[in-house]
Amino acid sequence: MAAPVTSHDVARVVGVSQATVSRALRDDPSISARTKSRVLDAAAKLGYVANELGRNLSTRTTRRIALVADLDNPLWPLLVAEIHDELSSHNYSMTLLTERGDPGGMQANLLGGWADGVVITSARQAAQLPFELVRRGVPLVLVNRTVEGLDADCSVADNAAGGRAAAQLLIESGHTRVGALFGPADTSTGRDRELGFREGLAEAGMALHPADVRHGPFDYAYGRAALPELLTGGSGPTALFCSNDIIAIGAMNTAHELGLRVPEDIALVGFDDLAQASWPLFNLTTIHVPFQEMLRSAVTMLLDRLEGGVTQARHQVHPVTPVLRATHRVGGLSG
Amino acid sequence: MAAPVTSHDVARVVGVSQATVSRALRDDPSISARTKSRVLDAAAKLGYVANELGRNLSTRTTRRIALVADLDNPLWPLLVAEIHDELSSHNYSMTLLTERGDPGGMQANLLGGWADGVVITSARQAAQLPFELVRRGVPLVLVNRTVEGLDADCSVADNAAGGRAAAQLLIESGHTRVGALFGPADTSTGRDRELGFREGLAEAGMALHPADVRHGPFDYAYGRAALPELLTGGSGPTALFCSNDIIAIGAMNTAHELGLRVPEDIALVGFDDLAQASWPLFNLTTIHVPFQEMLRSAVTMLLDRLEGGVTQARHQVHPVTPVLRATHRVGGLSG
Repeated sequence: MAAPVTSHDVARVVGVSQATVSRALRDDPSISARTKSRVLDAAAKLGYVANELGRNLSTRTTRRIALVADLDNPLWPLLVAEIHDELSSHNYSMTLLTERGDPGGMQANLLGGWADGVVITSARQAAQLPFELVRRGVPLVLVNRTVEGLDADCSVADNAAGGRAAAQLLIESGHTRVGALFGPADTSTGRDRELGFREGLAEAGMALHPADVRHGPFDYAYGRAALPELLTGGSGPTALFCSNDIIAIGAMNTAHELGLRVPEDIALVGFDDLAQASWPLFNLTTIHVPFQEMLRSAVTMLLDRLEGGVTQARHQVHPVTPVLRATHRVGGLSG
Repeated sequence: MAAPVTSHDVARVVGVSQATVSRALRDDPSISARTKSRVLDAAAKLGYVANELGRNLSTRTTRRIALVADLDNPLWPLLVAEIHDELSSHNYSMTLLTERGDPGGMQANLLGGWADGVVITSARQAAQLPFELVRRGVPLVLVNRTVEGLDADCSVADNAAGGRAAAQLLIESGHTRVGALFGPADTSTGRDRELGFREGLAEAGMALHPADVRHGPFDYAYGRAALPELLTGGSGPTALFCSNDIIAIGAMNTAHELGLRVPEDIALVGFDDLAQASWPLFNLTTIHVPFQEMLRSAVTMLLDRLEGGVTQARHQVHPVTPVLRATHRVGGLSG
């Protein structure tokens, strides 16, 4: 293989300094459009294609952040867009990784300095990756979900308080028998929303009948399938707490299909306050999670850590607020 | 700066060959878990963090594909997930870039060999980036949208045929005055769906009244806002063609809010056949786009090109099919 073309070769051809070539390739505003164009042309002609890689090898940074996300979660488009924009405004690129595909390869890459830092949005309680990253000192932040016993920065919503608020809301609305479509117990969001909801009921002297409870993934199909199982001929619950909005929207669609009215025949409360929750056809009562603040603070924590100096793990918990729309009330005759 | 730690240093510490270190860091299945763990530990202790970068510099490939996507498009979560999984199964990572943020920097990176290839899902007609990439020989595929006059691989739906099919469907259903919420004219999808719809009407001797036509972005808010403008007290159209499902869902939500029935008071036809279109509360008649086939064929074309040997630009057009649900019929008394 021939000796690799360097930025010095490009500089020689264009007749500028190597520093100018570097700046031009970084699109530095101090370099004129004309010079940038000449540099790009010369780089292309010479086959100089490894500029960023070469730069990385000398600075030992990649300016790349890995986002570990679960593509099946209805939240992830929101998370990805917000985190991308926030990183981009700090001149970092974002590479998306998922635990589908090849988790072993992903772990080796992340431990091998493949990115400057890692954002994990989809942590499950059994996950080993975050512990490995912490042990090896890879800058890391968990957002939305956290993992018990992990000594790392995280930015989450106050899911337990949200669960309690949902219970209180249904009790204050006059429901005397409620059910729940809880999320996965191996996620902190699923677990804490459930704990909070059960606590809120207990504080009012109520409890869930085991027959009125399901656990499932945070998705539409689960809400869609679970609703009829809990509505056993009028003797069942008059309201369901759903651990996220998409489960509630699934349940609402099945109610519509069965000719049941929401909330008259079955009341529903979601969690997250996705944009869809406010659509007139859903008008879903839910618990608002301040995603933008949560994501921004996560990125800020990660960037602080990349700059060094931060040693203690920080745990940010963002307050949530009930949003009362049309789906939580007691039905006219069914209360 | 001290001499950089190399994979040879790691090999010496662990007592294995350099090739074994390389394989361990790539998570090659031929290396035992125990050896991998020892290699990762030694690499971490020595501060050997540049393995992938070093490897890239010698092979001159990044095994990274850049996805240029428009995060505001309701389609992109679907596109990103599918393209990610498809690339991942071929051992490529995917880095997400958007034209928000810093388009100049993005262009310089892409032209500078920052990724092995580029997938563009959000091309607008005025875009310069795809032309620059083609001119410099960067492997490229356009998916979903294409750009006129560009000599590059692309994989798109037959949007014009879909527009014609939507027109025929509304005419066959008995509508005699129809309107349209078209998409952006500077996208090939927006333009071709509009052209096809107008052609379909023309073939039946019909035309759109200018007052019954709007153009806007492919989003919910546009459909939401546009519906009341077109329903001018019973003398307006009885059906609207919407250039995508999210526009139609926006219009449907406003109809619900205004107490209008779909399709009795206003019929709606969407485009794309997103999962939501089949939800019972929407039950939207639409034009099905075979996204999975479209995306897979795009990734296949790109990988073919990366392997060399492909010279001609290929243009794949995937057939679309109407999906008749509940929203296209003529209303009882309004026909």
